[in-house]
Amino acid sequence: MPYRSTERTRQKKDAKRTAMMQTAVRVFAEKGYHAATIRDIVKEAGVAIGTFYFYFPDKETLFVHLYEETADFLLQTIYQAVQSRAALPQQLRAGLQAYVNIALYEPAVVQLLLVGGVGAVPSLAAKRTAFREQLTSIWQEALENALAAALIPPQNVRRAAELLAGGFDEVILNLLNHANPETEAGTAVPEMVQFALRAAAYVE
Amino acid sequence: MPYRSTERTRQKKDAKRTAMMQTAVRVFAEKGYHAATIRDIVKEAGVAIGTFYFYFPDKETLFVHLYEETADFLLQTIYQAVQSRAALPQQLRAGLQAYVNIALYEPAVVQLLLVGGVGAVPSLAAKRTAFREQLTSIWQEALENALAAALIPPQNVRRAAELLAGGFDEVILNLLNHANPETEAGTAVPEMVQFALRAAAYVE
Repeated sequence: MPYRSTERTRQKKDAKRTAMMQTAVRVFAEKGYHAATIRDIVKEAGVAIGTFYFYFPDKETLFVHLYEETADFLLQTIYQAVQSRAALPQQLRAGLQAYVNIALYEPAVVQLLLVGGVGAVPSLAAKRTAFREQLTSIWQEALENALAAALIPPQNVRRAAELLAGGFDEVILNLLNHANPETEAGTAVPEMVQFALRAAAYVE
Repeated sequence: MPYRSTERTRQKKDAKRTAMMQTAVRVFAEKGYHAATIRDIVKEAGVAIGTFYFYFPDKETLFVHLYEETADFLLQTIYQAVQSRAALPQQLRAGLQAYVNIALYEPAVVQLLLVGGVGAVPSLAAKRTAFREQLTSIWQEALENALAAALIPPQNVRRAAELLAGGFDEVILNLLNHANPETEAGTAVPEMVQFALRAAAYVE
């Protein structure tokens, strides 16, 4: 059965790729991008150095893939949570809860996306802009729907979405530096929702 | 007059230091921190390489000083603008206008502070946190005064200040990528003020 054999080989390889990616997030977070070496990553991931070069020509390429894939994961998770609800208050709450959950579970990933990426690898600047744009558009779409239903007054929803996107990220980053992130998250999510609803002048 | 001679020498040296700092912001913005060399900086600044080493042991030290000094400049300018007014709406407007003015006049400085720093030099992480903390405290103080005067209802002003700090920065970064930043700034400042006043439930 040549197909299944190929499929199995592919899965095995993908597992190695995933292991390297997950290790790389940790290694970059601990040592910083420039101090971290390919050797550190393969050693911690328990794969041969040749395996690294099978997937990536160099450290920068791995880093760029890491940024893109973690950004996609974060965006999809938040978007799906928002779309699972119909009204703005519930959409904000679900989206922010999903975001906070990822931040608590994978702090290094969120730190990488929000703080660490661009200065380390200048070629990421355009990808960072795209990530910010997509994150903003999630909040913007929710505001546009509320505007269409006349639940918020006419306003520049793009600007409001930028303000929310940046504001939420600031709170989430501060959460990660908090002594007790889980407890703090319990008040942060409803406070962010209330702030956003007031800012958009949502009619209950 | 030995004092004046020393003083004049000091001023001349400080002028060279300032020239290197100003050039470094540009060079880092163009090439990225890691690609930029000390040679690039001294060449563009028109100083001898020995002058560089008179002030800084290495590129990272210059970068850290650059980050700290530009952060202090930005924070002081915003803080003074806020303090020059008494009521929350005018404080927000003056502070944001001062911030936007710096961003329009020195985009590379603001880009460095908000995006580029930490990934490039991991030792900046603590300084970035301090910068965010101080920026947040400017907005928090304005909210606390409004709260004390019962112009906003009881709320977690620290959280609101985090949301504003992050939100304002997002808008300002987007402004810099805009085709026509000056025109865009004309609507961005009043929109940010309105958003903030609504979010804090300010009573007019």
